[in-house]
Amino acid sequence: MQTDHSLGELAVRFGLTLRGNPDLRVSRVATLTGAGAGALSFLANSRYRRQLEGARATAVVLSEEDADACPVAALIGANPYLAYARIAALLHPRPLVEPGVHPSAIIGARVRVPDSSSVAALAILEEDVEIGERVSIGPGCVLMRGARIGADSHLVARVTVHPRVCIGERCIVHPGAVIGSDGFGFARDGAAWIKVAQQGGVRIGDDVEIGANTTIDRGAIDDTVIADGVKLDNQIQVAHNVTIGAHTAIAACTGISGSTTIGERCMIGGMVGFAGHLTIADDVAVTGFTLVSASIRESGSYSSGIPAEHTPAWRRTVAQLRRLGRTRRPDGA
Amino acid sequence: MQTDHSLGELAVRFGLTLRGNPDLRVSRVATLTGAGAGALSFLANSRYRRQLEGARATAVVLSEEDADACPVAALIGANPYLAYARIAALLHPRPLVEPGVHPSAIIGARVRVPDSSSVAALAILEEDVEIGERVSIGPGCVLMRGARIGADSHLVARVTVHPRVCIGERCIVHPGAVIGSDGFGFARDGAAWIKVAQQGGVRIGDDVEIGANTTIDRGAIDDTVIADGVKLDNQIQVAHNVTIGAHTAIAACTGISGSTTIGERCMIGGMVGFAGHLTIADDVAVTGFTLVSASIRESGSYSSGIPAEHTPAWRRTVAQLRRLGRTRRPDGA
Amino acid sequence: MQTDHSLGELAVRFGLTLRGNPDLRVSRVATLTGAGAGALSFLANSRYRRQLEGARATAVVLSEEDADACPVAALIGANPYLAYARIAALLHPRPLVEPGVHPSAIIGARVRVPDSSSVAALAILEEDVEIGERVSIGPGCVLMRGARIGADSHLVARVTVHPRVCIGERCIVHPGAVIGSDGFGFARDGAAWIKVAQQGGVRIGDDVEIGANTTIDRGAIDDTVIADGVKLDNQIQVAHNVTIGAHTAIAACTGISGSTTIGERCMIGGMVGFAGHLTIADDVAVTGFTLVSASIRESGSYSSGIPAEHTPAWRRTVAQLRRLGRTRRPDGA
Repeated sequence: MQTDHSLGELAVRFGLTLRGNPDLRVSRVATLTGAGAGALSFLANSRYRRQLEGARATAVVLSEEDADACPVAALIGANPYLAYARIAALLHPRPLVEPGVHPSAIIGARVRVPDSSSVAALAILEEDVEIGERVSIGPGCVLMRGARIGADSHLVARVTVHPRVCIGERCIVHPGAVIGSDGFGFARDGAAWIKVAQQGGVRIGDDVEIGANTTIDRGAIDDTVIADGVKLDNQIQVAHNVTIGAHTAIAACTGISGSTTIGERCMIGGMVGFAGHLTIADDVAVTGFTLVSASIRESGSYSSGIPAEHTPAWRRTVAQLRRLGRTRRPDGA
Repeated sequence: MQTDHSLGELAVRFGLTLRGNPDLRVSRVATLTGAGAGALSFLANSRYRRQLEGARATAVVLSEEDADACPVAALIGANPYLAYARIAALLHPRPLVEPGVHPSAIIGARVRVPDSSSVAALAILEEDVEIGERVSIGPGCVLMRGARIGADSHLVARVTVHPRVCIGERCIVHPGAVIGSDGFGFARDGAAWIKVAQQGGVRIGDDVEIGANTTIDRGAIDDTVIADGVKLDNQIQVAHNVTIGAHTAIAACTGISGSTTIGERCMIGGMVGFAGHLTIADDVAVTGFTLVSASIRESGSYSSGIPAEHTPAWRRTVAQLRRLGRTRRPDGA
Repeated sequence: MQTDHSLGELAVRFGLTLRGNPDLRVSRVATLTGAGAGALSFLANSRYRRQLEGARATAVVLSEEDADACPVAALIGANPYLAYARIAALLHPRPLVEPGVHPSAIIGARVRVPDSSSVAALAILEEDVEIGERVSIGPGCVLMRGARIGADSHLVARVTVHPRVCIGERCIVHPGAVIGSDGFGFARDGAAWIKVAQQGGVRIGDDVEIGANTTIDRGAIDDTVIADGVKLDNQIQVAHNVTIGAHTAIAACTGISGSTTIGERCMIGGMVGFAGHLTIADDVAVTGFTLVSASIRESGSYSSGIPAEHTPAWRRTVAQLRRLGRTRRPDGA
């Protein structure tokens, strides 16, 4: 679905400075190199300024310092990517889902679906599930007994939500996500393992996004907690009793072991591994492919990933590293 | 579901020493810091002994050495976490699933669901699937033709089981798990790849637990084998013809390449990568974020994960490491 | 399903040299150590030549140099694994799926399922989905509005395909795969994150195979592109606007960050992490557990994974590595 807006209207609405004809209209977003008439592009990083040269978009959102290089209408702001995000949301709103319950959906006892909400084909809402206003439950989702979904949240498709899981408002959960599965808890009994009952739940705040095939385990006793505004990419694993602070964003394939607490506003790269029972401060950045095996007490950036080199050179590096490990200092340390 | 038991009964039943009133009753588990009347807590690690100070649980399961510090009733045993696991299983039994086949389930030809078993909404049991007694097939599961599920096993929801997969008794499989998908086998034909037929199956023993979104490929010719008592966390990848020995536990996000054999009673951390065609001995521990690229012949603990440090310091470390790789020893090695 | 072929026929059909009785017949594949009468085995690697000793297969596919050691009939070719792959495909064709639409499938408006194609139980084809000839849509798949599936492609089960996704011909997609979910795009707004509309699609070429629980995000503006003949293993993450060149094969658990372009005929190991916005040349190999954080301009093999050693030795290595990072060269670099 696309709508159509004049540059003048966009400038006023989003507090941008317009250089160009305010009556020009845009209806869609496009890349700088792919745009044509009616398209809006953006330049968020001056490094790519040269892409402006051939720009044929109707307008480009960019910063003051790049504006002179722009051959078409410019919408100028201090944070062009943010302005672009807002305009793109206006031009490309989430497709409206017709409210109502598909006849093939399975609705359990004591479930009330508000008239403003939708339940798609073959979704399952077991008994006592609670659904807020304007919620959209996509095809094939399974909401187990008593799960709660806050207003305006959208489960895209094939999402599994267990009992004792509460999802806040305006959340988006992508296909294949599993929320509230048993934590990995076992007690040793000789050679064998005895399952430890996983009795907690999962509490997810407002404005949280959860990626495709991401898994979030319920707590062992207390709850696993995902605070407001957290963004989780695809294939992330969140173990039992993890807490993730507000507005923290985590890239794909990262795993967080049990009972670790991550602070607010952290930015965690992809394929990062967190050991269990750690405390990570607020405003911590962790670059991709890093092992976090101890608590981090102060904000800053942390890393342990080694960039690739040619395999023969790398083999020599590893050999020297091994040798290094066998070295003892003169003082015996 | 909760039940209610006296401390005296618990002490007798689980061979624990009780210090306190045997008539007190507990109905649920709780953390030491969150517990109130009627709750049972545990202290498994003396490091957290200080949490006993304010304990308001009705009773705490702990070891002899921590008992004196316990301000409430104490259930004392040599392995308090195991005792806690057993009591928690008693207090919080798995919710009983009503036997029977949901009318929306799709049941293929020649499938007999025992009266003691349940098949939930929108589950699919293709032709010739075999279901044991007291099995629970959760909502949205897909069991392809001829798959076999042993007695008392529980597929929680949205589990996919392929043909030629046999799951043992008392297994638990969490949502999104895929068991028996084609192994990744291709033969090179010039630039292109030709698929190698994947004709084996998957044999899963008794008392195995398989985490959410874990994938286990069928064998290329012979079967992939998961022995009794193996515990697999979420998002683990088990390639074709892997064998995992009895009672081995593997944490989330670990990947095991084709034809590797892992021994019995191993403990594998999260995000560990195993190369293919390896043999790993019994009783091996591998810490998280480790690459296992060669066979391990003797039990013990193995590692290769590097803990994070500040990014600028880490960059210097990597630069020195590169320099090290370019160093040649005086003897030319 | 099995068929039965004479060795003479196989030799002619696949251009192999036969040593042995051309009238012998084989009906199935088997391992060298597990084979019996009627079975065909292969030896692709001379390292395993000793397994020929006790071979009881009816015939073995192998190379000239191993033929003398073969105690049974030999089918000899320059690329025995490829020849084996072709014969195995002949002996074990993909089970024929009966064409037709299962009555429990949900078929949206304006969807035409060709008579030669099949839609299994509880699959969902939303409005405007396009299905080619001889396509097989497995149980529980969700194809959102307008998704397109090319001729002869097979979605095994529980695959999710979003709008604006186009899958080519002869593709195989395994259970739990999610194709076309939103990319991970957010603009910072103070502490919070604002979602950036993900408006692109996913274009998947012909002869592509996509593993179980693999996720491929749609592009932010332009499309994510998977070229012809690409083979993706299980649990791979492909972020928005990634391009993967023709005939590249990627092993399980690898993650590719946004806007990275991987060349043609690359071979990427398991658990490899690619940073975003990189360009990887054609014919690049990356060994497992490697971090690729910079573009790779020339073909060759690249690595950064460190093999495991005993944990105490490894701890010493890490300590020395830390010390190394704190070393400054005499020239201050």
